[in-house]
Amino acid sequence: MTWTGETHLQILVVGSVAYDTVETPAGKREFQLGGSACYFSMSASYFTDVGLIGVVGRDFDPDDLDMLKQHGIDTSGLIEADGKTFRWYGEYMEDINAAVTLDTQLNVFGGFDPELCDTHSNTPYLFLANVDPTIQIKVLDSMSKKPKMVACDTMNLWIDVARPALNDLIRRVDILIINEDEAKQLTGEENLAHAAHAILGLGPSLVTIKRGEYGVALFGDDFSFAAPAYPLDRVVDPTGAGDSFAGGFMGYIASVDRIDQDALRTASIAGSTMASFAVEDFGLERIKILTKADIESRFDAFTDLTHFKPMS
Amino acid sequence: MTWTGETHLQILVVGSVAYDTVETPAGKREFQLGGSACYFSMSASYFTDVGLIGVVGRDFDPDDLDMLKQHGIDTSGLIEADGKTFRWYGEYMEDINAAVTLDTQLNVFGGFDPELCDTHSNTPYLFLANVDPTIQIKVLDSMSKKPKMVACDTMNLWIDVARPALNDLIRRVDILIINEDEAKQLTGEENLAHAAHAILGLGPSLVTIKRGEYGVALFGDDFSFAAPAYPLDRVVDPTGAGDSFAGGFMGYIASVDRIDQDALRTASIAGSTMASFAVEDFGLERIKILTKADIESRFDAFTDLTHFKPMS
Repeated sequence: MTWTGETHLQILVVGSVAYDTVETPAGKREFQLGGSACYFSMSASYFTDVGLIGVVGRDFDPDDLDMLKQHGIDTSGLIEADGKTFRWYGEYMEDINAAVTLDTQLNVFGGFDPELCDTHSNTPYLFLANVDPTIQIKVLDSMSKKPKMVACDTMNLWIDVARPALNDLIRRVDILIINEDEAKQLTGEENLAHAAHAILGLGPSLVTIKRGEYGVALFGDDFSFAAPAYPLDRVVDPTGAGDSFAGGFMGYIASVDRIDQDALRTASIAGSTMASFAVEDFGLERIKILTKADIESRFDAFTDLTHFKPMS
Repeated sequence: MTWTGETHLQILVVGSVAYDTVETPAGKREFQLGGSACYFSMSASYFTDVGLIGVVGRDFDPDDLDMLKQHGIDTSGLIEADGKTFRWYGEYMEDINAAVTLDTQLNVFGGFDPELCDTHSNTPYLFLANVDPTIQIKVLDSMSKKPKMVACDTMNLWIDVARPALNDLIRRVDILIINEDEAKQLTGEENLAHAAHAILGLGPSLVTIKRGEYGVALFGDDFSFAAPAYPLDRVVDPTGAGDSFAGGFMGYIASVDRIDQDALRTASIAGSTMASFAVEDFGLERIKILTKADIESRFDAFTDLTHFKPMS
């Protein structure tokens, strides 16, 4: 049994599709397309073929659907339900690196109950974006065969209120992609290396810790990798940076179809590259107009930023 | 006129010599040798010949003087004055990355008025550790000829109370080595790249921004470099990490006697290497027992931590 020919999709992402109202020092945007599944799939679309599983309301803008499709994203798993699309209201005013949630209206996302078709359930790479871990588990259980790599994200809410389900999920994924604060909260460890190794002890063979403006660290059983974030002149809207990272990371891995250490290191920089673009404009404004040349150029800038020679 | 033969000293450091009483989650130490000049010179001593300018009281322990001398440090500029050695009392309890100062007793350091002898005033590399900027300027004025590179550090206190003198100093140094928070305070810029470029606008051709557990960033007019900190399993005492960084950074530069971009990048990792050792034990306990093999091994670990291959 091979993956080839069964489906053209390389990655399936399950997560939120949202209309975000965001205020940052750079300005305010109302009801811009967002949500983990959108940031992830748009970012990954520059690397490989992605399918998106999510739910939207009757208010979903056909132009937004077109935009996803124009990026080659399989939106056949994007279900329209009675009601309004998930809405998030947030601001980044005091500290550009810390979102303050003003309001969350789950709307149709409150009843999100994804069903996978055969094509989707045969996808070799699976990203379970931050949703209720019982939904993440349901999707994982729906896969026809074990994917080559399953990654998941989570958040403080689920660590607080759904710990048993979250533990069940984490035990079954290959890689947890998580914010630094949440890695520490999840493990009760203040030290980064301790937190990472405690997570590896929960089941995954890899953990990627997202450090926002400070970059990313990746830990496996026998290696670690760390990279700074790109020192941008202007951060307009940090919303979606983490999911854009995950999209670039998984997108690169799926594109080379290798999960070795070299690929994981390069994938971390591919992810950092996509996150650096995500924050340069509101919502998906920057991500949606990228070229491969833009991505290669920023990746090369990371190489230039971080390279050094041995001591002589 | 050449540097060779005029003095064996490659670096001169002017700063504090202190007895620190420190409490961290790992324990408490009373009256351990510390101070910026000690951390810097001990760290740099593994790379090149260092001279130390400072002041101690009658209580200074001859064993501490021996320890500095055993590391080849020229202590002829370490003056003994009537009174007690500078004492700092601090703790890192809530947050291992943030010192809380409980008490500062300047003692003889309050009257610190360094005089340079001919040997010292001819040193090609000069580090003006964090002291009153009027003293830093006095030392700079005392140099017989312009050093190849002058670096300085400062702190929030001087930004608050001695801004004109600090501006005069910064205008005249080649490189400012400063904590991230203080870089932002000094410039009023919250964005790292903006803060760095604002500092370059004040005069220096280089600025190194120390980010504690998040590593370091180096900015020049036409390049930038960034590196994560080494993800240590155990941080015992962060005191002196910044000066140990500066000692490794300047020590490497002086040892290769080149100030080009490649040397500056490697020097940043040499500095990060020394800082990573500094925090592994109380005070100078780890730094004082290092071997060149230890340093090369940790430097190589940084290479392993950060390397990645191009996208294929």
